[in-house]
Amino acid sequence: MSKTPSDALSATLHNHLQQIIRENQQLAEKLDFDQVAAILPLLQQAKRVFVVGAGRTGLALKAAAMRLMHLGLTVFVVGETTTPAIGSGDVLLAGSGSGTTSSIVKAAEKAAAAGAQVVAISTTTSSPLAALATHVAVLPAAQKQDHGGEISAQYAGSLFEQSVLLLLDAIFQTLWGLDGTPAEELWKRHANLE
Amino acid sequence: MSKTPSDALSATLHNHLQQIIRENQQLAEKLDFDQVAAILPLLQQAKRVFVVGAGRTGLALKAAAMRLMHLGLTVFVVGETTTPAIGSGDVLLAGSGSGTTSSIVKAAEKAAAAGAQVVAISTTTSSPLAALATHVAVLPAAQKQDHGGEISAQYAGSLFEQSVLLLLDAIFQTLWGLDGTPAEELWKRHANLE
Amino acid sequence: MSKTPSDALSATLHNHLQQIIRENQQLAEKLDFDQVAAILPLLQQAKRVFVVGAGRTGLALKAAAMRLMHLGLTVFVVGETTTPAIGSGDVLLAGSGSGTTSSIVKAAEKAAAAGAQVVAISTTTSSPLAALATHVAVLPAAQKQDHGGEISAQYAGSLFEQSVLLLLDAIFQTLWGLDGTPAEELWKRHANLE
Amino acid sequence: MSKTPSDALSATLHNHLQQIIRENQQLAEKLDFDQVAAILPLLQQAKRVFVVGAGRTGLALKAAAMRLMHLGLTVFVVGETTTPAIGSGDVLLAGSGSGTTSSIVKAAEKAAAAGAQVVAISTTTSSPLAALATHVAVLPAAQKQDHGGEISAQYAGSLFEQSVLLLLDAIFQTLWGLDGTPAEELWKRHANLE
Repeated sequence: MSKTPSDALSATLHNHLQQIIRENQQLAEKLDFDQVAAILPLLQQAKRVFVVGAGRTGLALKAAAMRLMHLGLTVFVVGETTTPAIGSGDVLLAGSGSGTTSSIVKAAEKAAAAGAQVVAISTTTSSPLAALATHVAVLPAAQKQDHGGEISAQYAGSLFEQSVLLLLDAIFQTLWGLDGTPAEELWKRHANLE
Repeated sequence: MSKTPSDALSATLHNHLQQIIRENQQLAEKLDFDQVAAILPLLQQAKRVFVVGAGRTGLALKAAAMRLMHLGLTVFVVGETTTPAIGSGDVLLAGSGSGTTSSIVKAAEKAAAAGAQVVAISTTTSSPLAALATHVAVLPAAQKQDHGGEISAQYAGSLFEQSVLLLLDAIFQTLWGLDGTPAEELWKRHANLE
Repeated sequence: MSKTPSDALSATLHNHLQQIIRENQQLAEKLDFDQVAAILPLLQQAKRVFVVGAGRTGLALKAAAMRLMHLGLTVFVVGETTTPAIGSGDVLLAGSGSGTTSSIVKAAEKAAAAGAQVVAISTTTSSPLAALATHVAVLPAAQKQDHGGEISAQYAGSLFEQSVLLLLDAIFQTLWGLDGTPAEELWKRHANLE
Repeated sequence: MSKTPSDALSATLHNHLQQIIRENQQLAEKLDFDQVAAILPLLQQAKRVFVVGAGRTGLALKAAAMRLMHLGLTVFVVGETTTPAIGSGDVLLAGSGSGTTSSIVKAAEKAAAAGAQVVAISTTTSSPLAALATHVAVLPAAQKQDHGGEISAQYAGSLFEQSVLLLLDAIFQTLWGLDGTPAEELWKRHANLE
């Protein structure tokens, strides 16, 4: 019996999800985990952590910001209402695939000028953002305008954005393991007014 | 010489702005300042201040949250990324014209249950929000669906929303006067990464 | 009988609110309403309206964006999740007291390059923002770092931010009057999922 | 030669990232793709798509909202400034692991009452949210308070939140494939003022 259009749709969707997970798996195999792990003590020792990113990368950083707050760190998202001035002893965690997004580079410049450390998550160490960073963690994913599909079959920066979320969640899990606080204690820190 | 349509437009705009300011002036004359001033020690003594409001009222509360942060208070906006759990010793500053907005009433319930004090800014002391509040400051403006225009010729809750901003800015000015910190010191607390 | 500290607090708060309203009244007297009214046809004829502002000025513009949406215009806030690309036929309504805020000037540059018109609300016509604007409406309020208090006794840009809200609400009332749609019809356009 | 603490940290981080990807892979194997694929025609035929979710689930839905906007759909995020009223012909895409998050259930109730269709993404078909939904896509991940770790070793709802992002990106890739618009055309729709 021939497949219906609906069967074909399910199969295509299945294939796309498999491919997305496979791309993230392949990217993980290319990571320099020593380089990435160097972020952890910077976060642990930071007086306060500020996160910044544009578009979907910014959303991945916000997701990480929530988890770091649950872990007990003092965390702010650049651009939100009561985010204070950054200063010495603070860390700016900045995500940008290309490392050239103007608002992110500008924030990194200002953070560095204010005496904060800049930690970049990017696809490259050769960028204006990387030049300003104390430390760069490289996720060798496609950049937003690599429409050729050599590294990823996905649209624009999707692989980078997904991998930022997954990597930051792995960083959270690792920090949590070092910290040892029971899940129930973290749970009490979740926003309780929504 | 007869007026052009453009002259008429300028005159109408002028009249509307005059009327908006006059409505705010008339509302100020009706305020019970002893009742409103009772908010100040609650904010000063709060461990942390959380603000919540829907729509344009929420925007007025965010504007106030920024100023209170500049003054040195620890302030969070409900619903933003790293806003933590509210608890004992904290104050929830909740604005709602009607005092019935479901998400605001729900937040007030949860805040009270968590041991925080609820300070309401509303047009009435007879509402679910007011019933949950430790203290209510009444701004006798029209409510959102008073389309009759008895109190205000403006659309919906505009007068209430404007007066929330102006009153909270007056509260800020008063707290600042008590505090005495120079403007230059407050300025250093402004967000510096945007 | 001597006043209690609480009486004094009420009186101080009362004075501050009076002063805030008086400053807005005095500012309104200095406005060139022909210049401001020229914004109205630009908004009416715009394919889509985009608003942008930093900090409290941005909050005032968001409040205006809501009302313009209620009136039936297609309105987007720069930086929100599904705000599309601006282009020819669109208007960017940009607020900045100094006209120098880097993110706002950058947005105005990009908007102009994309073929959109830039309408600025500012304290001055001599600024990078004004240079990019098709039209500037001047609110002669103090700028953020005028700590001297010649124009306003309020902190930083508070008077400018308040006056942006009040003026844009006057613009809304004027556009609404021209439009003639009943309040009940506007009400149906309010967000109904919060 | 013994490993340094830094080597151990890298290895732990590596293991956590592998585990996160493996959990997402295992979850994908359990999906009913016919059930999930049924979302696609609902999105394609929607007059407008509204998305809603709390916390990190909400961030995953915002990331999807951006991509759907790039694809040419009319998409709004519940709670953002100019999001209009939902109505007949519209779809509310609501994400909640438990299907009990009160603000999400409330939004679904209101959407259904306004004549919109509710599409839920959840871990279960037995919930107040599922009861209101036209269609439920089940991601059999752990719920937020399953601290036991049977399904996922990750904290709280992390696996659910990650899988919402990856699945919605797979849905986007599938819709994009059906649509056939070149990447360069989608790129022109990206926000251009940030």
